[in-house]
Amino acid sequence: MIVLGVDPGTATVGFGVVSSGRGTLKCLDYGCIRTHPEQSTAQRLLALYRGIIEIIEKNRPDRVAVEQLFFAKNAKTALAVGQARGVVVLAAASMGIDISEYTPLEVKSAVTGYGRAAKEQVQAMVQRILFLPTLPRPDDAADALAVAICCINSSRMESYE
Amino acid sequence: MIVLGVDPGTATVGFGVVSSGRGTLKCLDYGCIRTHPEQSTAQRLLALYRGIIEIIEKNRPDRVAVEQLFFAKNAKTALAVGQARGVVVLAAASMGIDISEYTPLEVKSAVTGYGRAAKEQVQAMVQRILFLPTLPRPDDAADALAVAICCINSSRMESYE
Repeated sequence: MIVLGVDPGTATVGFGVVSSGRGTLKCLDYGCIRTHPEQSTAQRLLALYRGIIEIIEKNRPDRVAVEQLFFAKNAKTALAVGQARGVVVLAAASMGIDISEYTPLEVKSAVTGYGRAAKEQVQAMVQRILFLPTLPRPDDAADALAVAICCINSSRMESYE
Repeated sequence: MIVLGVDPGTATVGFGVVSSGRGTLKCLDYGCIRTHPEQSTAQRLLALYRGIIEIIEKNRPDRVAVEQLFFAKNAKTALAVGQARGVVVLAAASMGIDISEYTPLEVKSAVTGYGRAAKEQVQAMVQRILFLPTLPRPDDAADALAVAICCINSSRMESYE
């Protein structure tokens, strides 16, 4: 099973591709799609859409996992993050790929065993779980890998039931 | 000039197509794209994307106008509206159409002369401005027509400068 985890933000969207098989998880790809602040919202959303499609075509994930968000600093931020998230979900749906959503609590619990873990703990645990040579950076990419790990672990649990 | 106005919401997205020429405005089309609550977010966003593309292909607008939102009941609503808005903006951008954004104050002022007008006043003025035989309904469609009217009026003012 291959999962693409995505952490949508306003300017930076983290992504991480994780595969499972033979009892271990493997990181296939991770990084960020960055858009330029001087571009219009429309151009940024278009660049994000094309970026996600490119990552899907390259890695052929079975599933896309995205973090659910219920809180934001303010409505303006929530609206901006929502726009990016909508485009990510649309890109996956247009390629016929199923989408799973997880709360931040579920994601942090899946990688650190603790729902309120700090960003540094998430990065360190993602590095260990995926046997990465260095800390996954930036935060957005580490968070995206954590969402992908969470999705794979949930699928395993479902298959045990 | 033909403008497609869009009022993005979570379940219902209003649209209105207005053309200007020879000093009058004309309504070419208006209505709503409705998605089903039992569908997943991904399926709803995909239906919205396809709906907007279809309206653009049918009416060939020169510009798409969307209302800016800064306030929302809560972050969850803002995120959901943001997702729909992101998909609308993406659909326009992917067809190479420019997007204009207007605040609710600008939209209401453009059609009623008063920034804090009630929904009923907006509907009644949109009906008069576009010589519609009946009140444009629902609210979402009337709001979308109001955004299109606002966009056309702003473009006229710009061309006078």
